[in-house]
Amino acid sequence: MLELVDLTKSLPDEVYESVFPDLEIRLGRIQRAAREAGVPVILVFEGWDASGKGTAINRLAQALDPRGFKVHPIREATTMERRHPWLWRFWNATPAAGQWAIFDRSWYGRVLADRISETVGKKDRRQAFEDIQAFERQLSEGGAVIVKFWLHIGRSEQKRRFRILESNEATAWKVGKVERHQHRHYDLWRRAVEDMLERTSPAYARWTVVEATQSRFARVKIFETLIHAVQTELDRRVAHPLAAGKPMPVPKQSPTGRHGLLDRLDLGLTLESGDYEKQLDRWQRRLFDLENRLYVARIPAVIVYEGQDAGGKGGNIRRLTRGMDPRGYEVVPVAAPTTEEKDHHYLWRFWKNVPRTGHITVFDRSWYGRVLVERVEGFCTRDEWRRAYREINEFERQLTDSGVIIIKFWLQISRDEQLRRFKDRQETPFKEWKITAEDWRNRDKWRQYKVCVEEMLQQTSTSAAPWIILEANCKLYARIKALKTVAAAMEAALRKRE
Amino acid sequence: MLELVDLTKSLPDEVYESVFPDLEIRLGRIQRAAREAGVPVILVFEGWDASGKGTAINRLAQALDPRGFKVHPIREATTMERRHPWLWRFWNATPAAGQWAIFDRSWYGRVLADRISETVGKKDRRQAFEDIQAFERQLSEGGAVIVKFWLHIGRSEQKRRFRILESNEATAWKVGKVERHQHRHYDLWRRAVEDMLERTSPAYARWTVVEATQSRFARVKIFETLIHAVQTELDRRVAHPLAAGKPMPVPKQSPTGRHGLLDRLDLGLTLESGDYEKQLDRWQRRLFDLENRLYVARIPAVIVYEGQDAGGKGGNIRRLTRGMDPRGYEVVPVAAPTTEEKDHHYLWRFWKNVPRTGHITVFDRSWYGRVLVERVEGFCTRDEWRRAYREINEFERQLTDSGVIIIKFWLQISRDEQLRRFKDRQETPFKEWKITAEDWRNRDKWRQYKVCVEEMLQQTSTSAAPWIILEANCKLYARIKALKTVAAAMEAALRKRE
Repeated sequence: MLELVDLTKSLPDEVYESVFPDLEIRLGRIQRAAREAGVPVILVFEGWDASGKGTAINRLAQALDPRGFKVHPIREATTMERRHPWLWRFWNATPAAGQWAIFDRSWYGRVLADRISETVGKKDRRQAFEDIQAFERQLSEGGAVIVKFWLHIGRSEQKRRFRILESNEATAWKVGKVERHQHRHYDLWRRAVEDMLERTSPAYARWTVVEATQSRFARVKIFETLIHAVQTELDRRVAHPLAAGKPMPVPKQSPTGRHGLLDRLDLGLTLESGDYEKQLDRWQRRLFDLENRLYVARIPAVIVYEGQDAGGKGGNIRRLTRGMDPRGYEVVPVAAPTTEEKDHHYLWRFWKNVPRTGHITVFDRSWYGRVLVERVEGFCTRDEWRRAYREINEFERQLTDSGVIIIKFWLQISRDEQLRRFKDRQETPFKEWKITAEDWRNRDKWRQYKVCVEEMLQQTSTSAAPWIILEANCKLYARIKALKTVAAAMEAALRKRE
Repeated sequence: MLELVDLTKSLPDEVYESVFPDLEIRLGRIQRAAREAGVPVILVFEGWDASGKGTAINRLAQALDPRGFKVHPIREATTMERRHPWLWRFWNATPAAGQWAIFDRSWYGRVLADRISETVGKKDRRQAFEDIQAFERQLSEGGAVIVKFWLHIGRSEQKRRFRILESNEATAWKVGKVERHQHRHYDLWRRAVEDMLERTSPAYARWTVVEATQSRFARVKIFETLIHAVQTELDRRVAHPLAAGKPMPVPKQSPTGRHGLLDRLDLGLTLESGDYEKQLDRWQRRLFDLENRLYVARIPAVIVYEGQDAGGKGGNIRRLTRGMDPRGYEVVPVAAPTTEEKDHHYLWRFWKNVPRTGHITVFDRSWYGRVLVERVEGFCTRDEWRRAYREINEFERQLTDSGVIIIKFWLQISRDEQLRRFKDRQETPFKEWKITAEDWRNRDKWRQYKVCVEEMLQQTSTSAAPWIILEANCKLYARIKALKTVAAAMEAALRKRE
């Protein structure tokens, strides 16, 4: 593949002088247009050492309005980054609507440098390709433009450039062990690069190989490619506006779903309070120990609570965490997204809250809002919530692959029980604030929610991250079942680690 | 001081049972009231190892609404944190209006553990006390409630607790070298603690020593103290509302200021374009080298650009950075704050952007907005902008203390020159977007701005971070002067380091 690249390509000075100023103006213009249209743009610069990535990025930076972009130089992961799933730091850096993120090196390090140095094994590498595909597809489907450049120079050109860098005291540090190693193993690298280019060039995130022997030629090609890619997306949006969503009304009850999973639950399961107190004490002690052992073993855990309003999520979480050390767990309540969150891919805010090794994050509501409230209320389009099942499964698999335990609880109560609890809240002075008009409105949509919940359970109960349903009419029963489930999952993870 | 603490204090079970549930409800209530009033709350938990900080925080966390607080366990600084001024990570963690930040250990590590281990020398420790005082005063004056607890237990009690921890396999790891060292040197620690308590208990951020032998006693005292402190601030706000600011009109010209600093400038200074091209090339090459040398020497730099609209900041910055490596510098444009930024202390968003060692941050407008546009437009109160001079000087001193080079440019043009440039922008198709109605409105306030600028220059030109005025009627002259100034400052810093 790369052997066909014509590395002698260059532009005469007079051609460059006649086209480049215009490209700069056009780039500025398209940046403003992308901002207005709310299109996020992701630029990836990969290439040989000394191929001119820095210079190319700097010329871009000069032509762009600094209010609209950020350069992310990707170096070795920090300790904190290594304590998270490997894509975590890249998710955190994805741009908001209308913003540009310029990556100087990127997630492709995983299948290049890490491959050559063999820090990532063959199986993980294969996984990495899948992860990358999912990552870019999710962002692209979320509306981002992704443009990826491979800056290509020949082996002898690289040598020549290293010599220049080495001859200047101020830049000699740039040619170190890593760079010399790449130069010695140029062919090995080339094969890895070709493999990468072939595997990761889908239509929505294509690689552009840039002949970079002459920096002016490279610069013009980069500007042209970029302007074209953003313009294409802007044109597409005019032709097919992302319908902000007319909600597709959720059927109240699907005819085939009359006797669904939720109807088959035994909501009569209860626990006596004497028995409860004894068991609570026992399981809280057990969890105290387990939290410590997980911490020492550096195993992270994610615990998701979903359920109807007044299903008892808050009280359940408090019992779960009562015996724990607050330095090791965090409860993340998920409400309506902030403006900043709305300006990003909907998974972005959850990625930010993925726990580091040895820590536990309890989500009080979660990314499942996409296929529940957002679906029912029409806050997202039909395409968006339908796509979400797959996105969620990919997201959770990426977590479990990196060693995160995932436990997902659905708290189910009956409609009558909900009514009883709503009334109780209204009548108890210090619980009053917990009940709002919105709760009553949601209650009216009980049956639509039921359809969504059943579909969600079915679509996202995977072997690595299955749903656990808590029969929650009796709060005591649901609490003990949650504690037991968490303890069992933690013990299983610890055994596996041994 | 601590020898007077009665460590035998305890509460009988029946008293505890009768008061605690009520305290929990009152805490929840006051949390909601603080959220409504937009009061940020900062809680600091310090204390002996095994004094029960974790348990105390957990009981608080159980009583609080998880949507409104975050626990920050402070451990050894990460590599990234150590590459910033030491207060950086604490500034980043300060809560937004209405939110609570709970610190499990805190900035006081600097004068406790770091003092004992002698990782911070005597001079830096003295400086640390000053930094802490400034930090807490700034937050408090910004409206935050600060409550600090020292959990106190005796030496023999500590021993007893270590034994219990060690006897459980799951918790034995909690008693390590550091904890045993503290126990052996209990008296040395006690003196450091006393010194800390004495030096850092101003009225607005007082320490509460908590007798922690019995955890129930401690818990009740913590809840009571906290509720009282937040209530006091809420009452104070009702009595003295933070006037959202009727702007104090800025006088158009102070009678004594008729021949101010800005009037004495020679705006006729120019440079011929032939000379300019030669010098530009020369200084850009020099800066390329200097950026690299700073990077290797791990010296960070902050470059601030302030000036009138159309003063030429953008073009000046582009010439400054043209030769640089984008992996080593970042341009941070400062516009109106976002909602999240408005919900924090106004310095918060600038602290977040302080460069790490070896990196350069160019601010296109900056924290000086507080004493310029915010003052003129009445976006902040009179107290706020008057306080800002000191806050800014403290902020900048904290940066220079930690080794940051600060260069501050004021670009000055004449009123006629501004008019010429405004018209030029309006008439040139690809510059048009740069001029808005707001620019014209600001122009009408030329003389008010002049008063503010002169006062700003006078109040904040410190020996560590002096202002450099760029006579900017001739853009070419201003650019070369900026390049030369930056190069000289960098060279001076490198020489000092040798």
